Amino acid sequence: MYLVELFGTAVFAMTGVIAVSKRGLDVIGALILGLVTAVGGGTVRDVLMRYPVFWFQDFSYVWVALIGGLVAFFLTAVIQNVQRSLLYLDAVGAALFAIAAANKALLDPGFSPPVAVILGLMTGIGGGLLRDVLAGRPTLLVSKEIYATPIVIGCAAFVTLRQLMPDFQPAAAVGTTLIIAVRALAIWFHLEMPGWLVKRD
Amino acid sequence: MYLVELFGTAVFAMTGVIAVSKRGLDVIGALILGLVTAVGGGTVRDVLMRYPVFWFQDFSYVWVALIGGLVAFFLTAVIQNVQRSLLYLDAVGAALFAIAAANKALLDPGFSPPVAVILGLMTGIGGGLLRDVLAGRPTLLVSKEIYATPIVIGCAAFVTLRQLMPDFQPAAAVGTTLIIAVRALAIWFHLEMPGWLVKRD
Amino acid sequence: MYLVELFGTAVFAMTGVIAVSKRGLDVIGALILGLVTAVGGGTVRDVLMRYPVFWFQDFSYVWVALIGGLVAFFLTAVIQNVQRSLLYLDAVGAALFAIAAANKALLDPGFSPPVAVILGLMTGIGGGLLRDVLAGRPTLLVSKEIYATPIVIGCAAFVTLRQLMPDFQPAAAVGTTLIIAVRALAIWFHLEMPGWLVKRD
Repeated sequence: MYLVELFGTAVFAMTGVIAVSKRGLDVIGALILGLVTAVGGGTVRDVLMRYPVFWFQDFSYVWVALIGGLVAFFLTAVIQNVQRSLLYLDAVGAALFAIAAANKALLDPGFSPPVAVILGLMTGIGGGLLRDVLAGRPTLLVSKEIYATPIVIGCAAFVTLRQLMPDFQPAAAVGTTLIIAVRALAIWFHLEMPGWLVKRD
Repeated sequence: MYLVELFGTAVFAMTGVIAVSKRGLDVIGALILGLVTAVGGGTVRDVLMRYPVFWFQDFSYVWVALIGGLVAFFLTAVIQNVQRSLLYLDAVGAALFAIAAANKALLDPGFSPPVAVILGLMTGIGGGLLRDVLAGRPTLLVSKEIYATPIVIGCAAFVTLRQLMPDFQPAAAVGTTLIIAVRALAIWFHLEMPGWLVKRD
Repeated sequence: MYLVELFGTAVFAMTGVIAVSKRGLDVIGALILGLVTAVGGGTVRDVLMRYPVFWFQDFSYVWVALIGGLVAFFLTAVIQNVQRSLLYLDAVGAALFAIAAANKALLDPGFSPPVAVILGLMTGIGGGLLRDVLAGRPTLLVSKEIYATPIVIGCAAFVTLRQLMPDFQPAAAVGTTLIIAVRALAIWFHLEMPGWLVKRD
């Protein structure tokens, strides 16, 4: 599980560097933006929950993000060939981080179930939002990409199941699978929100 | 008072959704941006004060913001007819939140009166700033709108009066009225800052 | 030392106001952006470290930032003549704040040496990042300016030396000098990153 989290962190950093590397930026800027993508969401979660920041206690997350960012920076051409695969891995990372965050909140009696859903969402999308803001790009909140919706659905399912049954495993499996499946369908079929749920002009 | 705060939260969420709904965005993005507008300022205040985040303890604020955001999203046409009225309600909400935040800071000996003024300002404008940053819009800090000034004036008056007299009521009444009145005059007469206080080029 | 820090705060606020005063903005917006530039990095550091926010305890930092911002707003023409000197002073301020932050983290057993480097970097560039985001400008992370690199180098040198020897003074002198020297060379010779460390397209 820990190894999977580290792997997710590296993938987040790589997608982060690739997302911003269309603009002219240097390796330091790229590494910082990759790091922000990878650990930003969890950092905001920890600050709001008043927990110690997770990567202060285990710096491996930062090393892994920096290495992932370096690889993405220097091997962008190679990675862009597998960029579509990266999108799916990114969905896996977002799912793991969101469900882990929702679970962290549920285990602490100071947080109610709906708060756990929001903390899960925040952890899943927070790093990407911070990266886009710091890179001056439009964030996913104003894009047509279906990114936040699968995380809301999966976290809500996970939190509801956890209220109904004591076991962590099946609830986490359902939540994670839902996020990955909905997101993968959106990527695969280039899905967009139905028109009545979108404002344009 | 509590009901008034919830009402202010809903109004903030509605103005938030309407402000960003000129750009193409979907209902999830709109709801998140409405929520950020409504609870963002108070969240930043609580984090800086090292208090528990207020909506973790009372989730009603979030429900009310989500409902307000949904209404604004689907009834935008209706609401734009009353948009000017919403601007005034927004001023009332900003006034209530700013004075409540300044008061919260004054009650805690860890915060000096000038800090209370800044925390009041931050709570009044923080949600709107966060929303604009996440939506990729120019923030009010670089707009010609007179928005922050009334809040600074009202919070400074409230904090000064509270130093001079023990009662909360009259000081809060003066502070809130000042914010609403100055902001309402600015909206009504399309006031701008005098030229020597503005940089252009 | 304390006076030097206050001076650095004023310089940060002045460079902040000058950086954004190309866009039309009023005196309140300018003062807020100047204040954010001056105290934003340290504020983020304190929040992440779960320390009380430094300017809540000593409001002098805010007064000095507001005065610096006012001077820069009304005497922009005068100051633009010495703007290049201000760039060097800004490097001095960034160096002092970054090394002070790294030291603060090293003194607390809750933070490992690599975390101290990141907290130093964050304090040195955080205020400028926040200002640019709130002003809708491209941040230094996507600019060709060599700004973050000297701070990373200096903080890494400082933290390494502090592990090797018990004395604060020589390590701080080396770290600060490195930051100022590398940044000053970059300003003086209009240095840019070597091409293989930069992405453009």
